[in-house]
Amino acid sequence: MSVSDLFDPRAIAVVGASDTPGKIGYEAVQNAIEFGGPVYPVNPSASGSIFGREFVSSVTEIDGDVDLALVCVPAPIVPDVIEECGEADIGGAVIFAGGFGEAGPEGRELQDRLVEAATEGDVHLLGPNTSGFLVPEENLYATFATDIDSIPAGNVAVVAQSGGLAYAIAFQAENEGVGVSAMVGLGNRANVGFEEAIEYFDTDPKTDAIVLHVEGTDDGRGLLETCRRVETPIAAYNVGEQDVGDFAESHTGALTGQYELYEAGFAQYGVPTVRSSTELLDAGTALATCPRPDGPNVGVVTAQAGPGIAITDRLKAAGATLPSLTEETQDVVEEILPGITFSANPVDTGRPMPEFGDVVAAVARDDNVDIVLVYELYEGGLGYPTDALAEVVDEVGKPIVFATGGSADVIAGELAELEALGVPTFKAPERGADAVSALVQYARRNSEPEAAVAEEVSADD
Amino acid sequence: MSVSDLFDPRAIAVVGASDTPGKIGYEAVQNAIEFGGPVYPVNPSASGSIFGREFVSSVTEIDGDVDLALVCVPAPIVPDVIEECGEADIGGAVIFAGGFGEAGPEGRELQDRLVEAATEGDVHLLGPNTSGFLVPEENLYATFATDIDSIPAGNVAVVAQSGGLAYAIAFQAENEGVGVSAMVGLGNRANVGFEEAIEYFDTDPKTDAIVLHVEGTDDGRGLLETCRRVETPIAAYNVGEQDVGDFAESHTGALTGQYELYEAGFAQYGVPTVRSSTELLDAGTALATCPRPDGPNVGVVTAQAGPGIAITDRLKAAGATLPSLTEETQDVVEEILPGITFSANPVDTGRPMPEFGDVVAAVARDDNVDIVLVYELYEGGLGYPTDALAEVVDEVGKPIVFATGGSADVIAGELAELEALGVPTFKAPERGADAVSALVQYARRNSEPEAAVAEEVSADD
Repeated sequence: MSVSDLFDPRAIAVVGASDTPGKIGYEAVQNAIEFGGPVYPVNPSASGSIFGREFVSSVTEIDGDVDLALVCVPAPIVPDVIEECGEADIGGAVIFAGGFGEAGPEGRELQDRLVEAATEGDVHLLGPNTSGFLVPEENLYATFATDIDSIPAGNVAVVAQSGGLAYAIAFQAENEGVGVSAMVGLGNRANVGFEEAIEYFDTDPKTDAIVLHVEGTDDGRGLLETCRRVETPIAAYNVGEQDVGDFAESHTGALTGQYELYEAGFAQYGVPTVRSSTELLDAGTALATCPRPDGPNVGVVTAQAGPGIAITDRLKAAGATLPSLTEETQDVVEEILPGITFSANPVDTGRPMPEFGDVVAAVARDDNVDIVLVYELYEGGLGYPTDALAEVVDEVGKPIVFATGGSADVIAGELAELEALGVPTFKAPERGADAVSALVQYARRNSEPEAAVAEEVSADD
Repeated sequence: MSVSDLFDPRAIAVVGASDTPGKIGYEAVQNAIEFGGPVYPVNPSASGSIFGREFVSSVTEIDGDVDLALVCVPAPIVPDVIEECGEADIGGAVIFAGGFGEAGPEGRELQDRLVEAATEGDVHLLGPNTSGFLVPEENLYATFATDIDSIPAGNVAVVAQSGGLAYAIAFQAENEGVGVSAMVGLGNRANVGFEEAIEYFDTDPKTDAIVLHVEGTDDGRGLLETCRRVETPIAAYNVGEQDVGDFAESHTGALTGQYELYEAGFAQYGVPTVRSSTELLDAGTALATCPRPDGPNVGVVTAQAGPGIAITDRLKAAGATLPSLTEETQDVVEEILPGITFSANPVDTGRPMPEFGDVVAAVARDDNVDIVLVYELYEGGLGYPTDALAEVVDEVGKPIVFATGGSADVIAGELAELEALGVPTFKAPERGADAVSALVQYARRNSEPEAAVAEEVSADD
């Protein structure tokens, strides 16, 4: 059996299913039945049906091929349930209950028993102590959380150590009108951790970038080596710069305190690191949407100087390089806009104008530029330089990131057109700069000499 | 005449009014007529009317008390127009044209002539080189920008050195469903700068907080001293940590390079400084919405540990103090939730539950806590702890900031209820933490010994 039993099941059993609204075992069934395949509510002490499905007394009694169990029972019973899952050839299980590795010696003992049962039965466990996962495109909601079917399908997989943070990011994706290919809360990572999840989503055709939330893991080396090995671009939100050790350990039993080592390791392997959930989502969107950058040199074009200066300040603070434009480009820009406000890099046109798109195209064609960042406040009557971008975006094959401001309803349609061209859009100057910084970090992968960071991380394990 | 002629006019003249759509002189008239008072299009070479208003040949020919002129003519003519404004007793003028102090020796000379005419005629100038200002509650749109009447009225005044950045913030306010009491782009600050604008909005009954965007000014001392003097809380986005001097000088003729001195000066006077336009808006929202904090000690209550850890990490990185809760509070929390996941500070309930509001109330009542930050993902059926907050918010008189995640449409109504209680809400954990960090910085005003920062800033003038 494989981890795809977990993330791509043919049928689902909900163990501890309940007909009492508000209970986890009720919400899990309600979510599960949105999925196209069969869903079996399992509860030895229940009879009748729920949402039109007959209760079954045990997973071993199900007549059909079930791949995934959503385990809604209290912690002490979970190892027995997983044993039964193994007997029933169920290859994946989501365990919502806490009270395992994060909860002192007794909890750790219980988690050991759980892993033993899972190993014996070849069951891939998400959790324990997780709020589950979801795959919007498949209407697959392996969770007890509510109001989650509004999260749209996208091409970024969110793999978070914390289920809560996974939802925080997924709902931001919904609020922003972008989506996720999957959202996974790993929880205690009993036998499916970052490594297994990253490898799975690396082969997932719906996923073009993976974003990680990391509080600390006892297999830092495995995480970093996996990031290096896979093809899909990854960005990471590494929490724990400050001392949050007690709190974090009580959460998912995680070791913290290796913050700097992770940061260095991620940097070495071209995994951009970010400082907030919003930045993580934006980094994922940029990595998933844009072509891979050939290098880290950024060309900036702005239609308003103030946001342009803020962007330049932020890019430089993040260590980005803004190269001089070639003389050819400078000539083209000067021809388009004689006496232009500021024509180095950034190029600032002072205000939006019909020629703005041509200026962007000239900078995008510049051989010194690997990544283009455009800022333009929306101006009615002019609109965005969609035609010019449509012409240049495939021609140059470089990431072009577009940041803007405008009335939400007015700009929504034109922003969607830009996104359809493969140009990610962001509604604050600094968010555009941060997304570009992620591309810059990604472009620097393997550009530094190999160091022994991964080994250092593993040394404390 | 006073600066209120500029920001609170009885009638408006648009000088250089045009009947050609797309021209600044057309857009300015179109915006101006949304205002309740009389609007006079002025153009010596035009006849007939525009938007039902008869063209007038000069401001001196207007029959009525005009306070504000929107000057849409090219730079070389502007000083003459301002001279006429003085003759016509027009006390305020917005000058859109660039080509003044930011544009080399000739521009500086033109700006000197302009200031001379303004001084002579007692005209308060916004700009030159600005995109103007707006006061949504008065439908007062002194600008050529389009699609701006969707920006709602709020209680935060945005005073930005850059008109572009002012719009970037105002549109974010619209996108977030909050509003602004005013949005001002100062541009070159010929005779109305930060000092005059801050003093005006300090007395504006619609304004409960002022947020500043600063690229650099040649009167740093005046800015800092004004911040100290006024009553209204202020937050500042001080751009220019990196070397952006050339670009910035070409923009509004600003001196940069005093970044660290400004940061120190703002800190001393309790002006929170932020690192992005989004943070600036959020800081303004928190300062404008919450009661003033009595001290900088933060109590954190979370319903999900992952976001809670991210929040704690970020608060600590910003220098916030999370004090121990009193024994009394710990007893109350333990009574509400025996065996709670984590009951130090942060208090983490592990997931949302009916008792969550009582836990928040207990922490809010703690004598060690000056500011409360709550994080709770929305859970249908439970909703937010609105009743508990309604009970405690007036009782304790402390800032309570609420961060959350959820489906936008599902949570909008309940978030509005929280905001109506005086609880600002933010849809990302880190945005809640940043807003609280602003309150912490504000609470630390004057807590450090008086230093000579303001004098140091002025030393280089």
